[in-house]
Amino acid sequence: MEATTQIAAQVTELSYALDTFYFLVMGALVMWMAAGFTMLEAGLVRAKNTAEILTKNVGLYSIACIMYMLCGYSIMYPGDFAGGILQSMTTIGSGLLTSSDNTAADVLASNGKTYYSNLSDFFFQVVFVATAMSIVSGAVAERMKLWAFFAFTVVLTGVIYPVQGFWNWGGGFLKESFGYFDFAGSGTVHLCGAAAALAGVMVLGSRKGKYGSSGQINAIPGCNLPLATLGTLILWLGWFGFNGGSELKVSDVSEANSVALVFVNTNMAAAGGLVFALLLSRFWFGKADLTMALNGALAGLVAITADPLSPSPIVATSIGAVGGLIVVASIVAFDKIRIDDPVGAISVHGTVGIWGVMAVLFSNGKASFTGQIVGVVSIFAWAFLVSLAVWFALKLIMGIRVSEEEEYEGVDISECGLEAYPEFTSAE
Amino acid sequence: MEATTQIAAQVTELSYALDTFYFLVMGALVMWMAAGFTMLEAGLVRAKNTAEILTKNVGLYSIACIMYMLCGYSIMYPGDFAGGILQSMTTIGSGLLTSSDNTAADVLASNGKTYYSNLSDFFFQVVFVATAMSIVSGAVAERMKLWAFFAFTVVLTGVIYPVQGFWNWGGGFLKESFGYFDFAGSGTVHLCGAAAALAGVMVLGSRKGKYGSSGQINAIPGCNLPLATLGTLILWLGWFGFNGGSELKVSDVSEANSVALVFVNTNMAAAGGLVFALLLSRFWFGKADLTMALNGALAGLVAITADPLSPSPIVATSIGAVGGLIVVASIVAFDKIRIDDPVGAISVHGTVGIWGVMAVLFSNGKASFTGQIVGVVSIFAWAFLVSLAVWFALKLIMGIRVSEEEEYEGVDISECGLEAYPEFTSAE
Amino acid sequence: MEATTQIAAQVTELSYALDTFYFLVMGALVMWMAAGFTMLEAGLVRAKNTAEILTKNVGLYSIACIMYMLCGYSIMYPGDFAGGILQSMTTIGSGLLTSSDNTAADVLASNGKTYYSNLSDFFFQVVFVATAMSIVSGAVAERMKLWAFFAFTVVLTGVIYPVQGFWNWGGGFLKESFGYFDFAGSGTVHLCGAAAALAGVMVLGSRKGKYGSSGQINAIPGCNLPLATLGTLILWLGWFGFNGGSELKVSDVSEANSVALVFVNTNMAAAGGLVFALLLSRFWFGKADLTMALNGALAGLVAITADPLSPSPIVATSIGAVGGLIVVASIVAFDKIRIDDPVGAISVHGTVGIWGVMAVLFSNGKASFTGQIVGVVSIFAWAFLVSLAVWFALKLIMGIRVSEEEEYEGVDISECGLEAYPEFTSAE
Repeated sequence: MEATTQIAAQVTELSYALDTFYFLVMGALVMWMAAGFTMLEAGLVRAKNTAEILTKNVGLYSIACIMYMLCGYSIMYPGDFAGGILQSMTTIGSGLLTSSDNTAADVLASNGKTYYSNLSDFFFQVVFVATAMSIVSGAVAERMKLWAFFAFTVVLTGVIYPVQGFWNWGGGFLKESFGYFDFAGSGTVHLCGAAAALAGVMVLGSRKGKYGSSGQINAIPGCNLPLATLGTLILWLGWFGFNGGSELKVSDVSEANSVALVFVNTNMAAAGGLVFALLLSRFWFGKADLTMALNGALAGLVAITADPLSPSPIVATSIGAVGGLIVVASIVAFDKIRIDDPVGAISVHGTVGIWGVMAVLFSNGKASFTGQIVGVVSIFAWAFLVSLAVWFALKLIMGIRVSEEEEYEGVDISECGLEAYPEFTSAE
Repeated sequence: MEATTQIAAQVTELSYALDTFYFLVMGALVMWMAAGFTMLEAGLVRAKNTAEILTKNVGLYSIACIMYMLCGYSIMYPGDFAGGILQSMTTIGSGLLTSSDNTAADVLASNGKTYYSNLSDFFFQVVFVATAMSIVSGAVAERMKLWAFFAFTVVLTGVIYPVQGFWNWGGGFLKESFGYFDFAGSGTVHLCGAAAALAGVMVLGSRKGKYGSSGQINAIPGCNLPLATLGTLILWLGWFGFNGGSELKVSDVSEANSVALVFVNTNMAAAGGLVFALLLSRFWFGKADLTMALNGALAGLVAITADPLSPSPIVATSIGAVGGLIVVASIVAFDKIRIDDPVGAISVHGTVGIWGVMAVLFSNGKASFTGQIVGVVSIFAWAFLVSLAVWFALKLIMGIRVSEEEEYEGVDISECGLEAYPEFTSAE
Repeated sequence: MEATTQIAAQVTELSYALDTFYFLVMGALVMWMAAGFTMLEAGLVRAKNTAEILTKNVGLYSIACIMYMLCGYSIMYPGDFAGGILQSMTTIGSGLLTSSDNTAADVLASNGKTYYSNLSDFFFQVVFVATAMSIVSGAVAERMKLWAFFAFTVVLTGVIYPVQGFWNWGGGFLKESFGYFDFAGSGTVHLCGAAAALAGVMVLGSRKGKYGSSGQINAIPGCNLPLATLGTLILWLGWFGFNGGSELKVSDVSEANSVALVFVNTNMAAAGGLVFALLLSRFWFGKADLTMALNGALAGLVAITADPLSPSPIVATSIGAVGGLIVVASIVAFDKIRIDDPVGAISVHGTVGIWGVMAVLFSNGKASFTGQIVGVVSIFAWAFLVSLAVWFALKLIMGIRVSEEEEYEGVDISECGLEAYPEFTSAE
């Protein structure tokens, strides 16, 4: 009997190890999405603004990690930290997570409730925050001041995102009172980021030359489409971690099957989104527009994120395909109303994020129309309005837009003091 | 005793979870190979054809996923689907894979026979199909119509590849009757793709300006070698999944050792191929030709794919090295006979694919010369002849080659309506 | 009772499988760092020297794998190979590792001492060697002969690195006699590579035009900053494997927690390094210098590598932040004394490598000042002096520097016979 108890303990520890390892691998894939956003945005802006968008992306990732450690994590998951922010700062920061992650004894005594390392959870969550913030950088590209952007990053990753993240995943009202269902964050991550981006674009205004005085819309093509394509494929890969890790557990037959289904559906939704965005652009514009195809794949991924676990693969493909159609229409529509979003981020993550949250209703018996709508409205309202206030405050305090001359010359020179491609471009 | 039974069940479930998770991680690495092919090919074509090759690559991956879901998987593994294609469409598509992956009870009752999620198998297989198709896009680059290419993609990924895949992995005659041995598909994946590519190139003809009327061969250098190098390194990484995952199981000492050996041999074969292709190009051409080195690494990878589990690491290095020598000679030879393959895909995957299948005989006691030869001939004949017929049909129905003017101007403009590098190139 | 024994055996095998799989996944991430160095260096040199730096990077990785297999591994871990080099060549090369990795019986009899595949260990170690050598290629970029570089690669990866690697990880005097503590190799890997690089730069001299005769220092900007950024993010991701895998085990609660902490601290140190390097460059130079930010992130990673397991996340962030400040100062200082290091590799891996080794003292109770200092001095002295001798020998035998004309024209043409970007650059 003692031998049996010992083996049982070893099996429990091994399960814990597998779940923790799975969580870390999935988290590493989500971290890799930072490279995806960076390449995507660098490929879709003009050469003269490339170094700056690169700086923004690597900077925002780093700031997001630091702010989420300092206060974001404890705001979002207050149940784990009795003392809130202050305790978090002394706790995550100075010792507890190091010296007192779950002990083997705790794990064994928990009867399966404690099944992965707290630190692996922090790692997984922190890379999510950066994803939300990455959405903003693309939309405000080519004309925003670098340090105003970083100031906003501090607020979004430290406060705006965590507060509404709590509503869904930390024990807050959306899930508890309204049954809001959002598996990996079509709303909680993507719509939140897009709402903040929309507020930013509205305060910031459009790029010079984008919209003519007589109503015409000028295309400003991205300078490096292989990079944009690479970025999309990186995001596609990283999304296996984003959705696959959100199952939080892999260590029995049922959980392993769930993770496998999430992988398959995530992949199929992206494929569906890409093909249908490509077809729509072919029939609407007459050409197979690569940038629309890429946004279609991302739209498929955003669309399936709210529930990659209920639909069958064909339904997942369809949810992604509809996302691909919506994103093309949304990009055209935002251009019509002169919301200048150089990379289409608001459409991909916002419009399609809403579609993703609502598409949950097709396959998921537990979600309700009311719950999903309340989720969309709450998240959008919170992220949009608070962001709007912050952008205005930043505009007053430090200014958020570069000068017209700097914009003309390119923000690489004015903000970073260097060029991204010094040998490849002769003149604007 | 009951406690023991319960623990035994838990251990079986945990094994299942580890094997499924391993399968998914390996599959994610293979999916990443799509990015590898995309970057490799984008780097090796001219700037004016880059957006189109990017579109082809992301499009083919998506179409491959959809077609394999709709019918390819059930053609290749009919044993799993009593009703064949039709059942597959209703099954994988509409429910079974969602609601009825293996239950814990099935797994426990199977005595170890059922040890991973069916969906994780589908995920792993579907990313293989895309690999086969990616081989084609490089060979026909810079002059083929985009939508004719996609039409071919539908047929290859939905039918041509699955039918011969069945011969090896699905219970078909090659393995069952002839003992054909091809671990991860030097023949089944790479030769198949290369045969389809060769047929395409023969129907399509060479690029304008490649071969002079007085017999000279003009080099058409790729526009972006960092991208080609990145693509090769992505493929190198992804190949750990391609070969490593083909062991299908990792959860005991012997299987874990096998996966480790596959990783080591895969890495060593690529290293051997790169070094020897570089040396040969140095002595033959007088220069260390980077593109030959990259193709050498890929040749090493293709060569070891048919059996990364029998040779020792030094023998694996040698098999890769010979692959590296062969690929250089093959590229030169195909150019001599005016088969215009812009990226060398037919040499890397076809010529060296055959070498890989035959090299199995050096270390693997179970393989026979007859079995391997029959495999090579069957796979090549099937993929080449059916592809030839399809390419001809497409030529009649919709045309497969862009006009001379479009080719001169670049297919980016004519097919995609945009440029990949609008600011970097002044004129052709 | 027999059932219990059988289950216990199964659990031990499953643990072995998980640890081996973890090791392979971490190793694959470290292999991916080869792509990171390749892209980083390709982005930071001029266009005319890009194909050659790409060739050097893919070549050195391949040579490193082959040399480490032939003799490096047995020099570094002689305990595993009674006969040393010769036995290694017959052993790793020709059979033992294939046919006689640990048997299940060995594993069960070892009482937990044998817990992963020998081959997975070889795989993990071999990708480390390549990392050390990658550091050199950046520092000597744009003026060194390709084949002299490869000759040096043979010596460093076959002998110089393994000998001092033995001192720390193979049972040698540094760890055994002095208690030198260096978890994943701030000293053993990074300082070693940087010392070899410094010796190379001193023998080689600076690039033409870098330092004016009247004392001025001319900036020579990198040609492709998106690539440099991509390379940095690849390295960031790969570092999770580099540090995370160095724990060597994940299969119980305590080990899993350790790996999770290593992931978190690695990530936080990079974030801290990036932010503080960016801030320092902003206040010192007036601009947010992207290349400094990237080197800051890498400095954070190098700094935490010697001990990512003792500090809390906030302390890890701080160790990284100090690394970020140091690297900026170090790059400026080396330029002042006319050590021409085009990518800043000596500062990132050498100066900050020393900082990393010493920073162990802040959190790790087991490390001593003496032990760490002796480690730094021994590793630096060995790697620097032997490298210096080898560089001088190579200079006498074959010459290590290209001609002035070749340097002016670009080494791509003279060494590789092709251009990296034939369509993007009109003239130097």
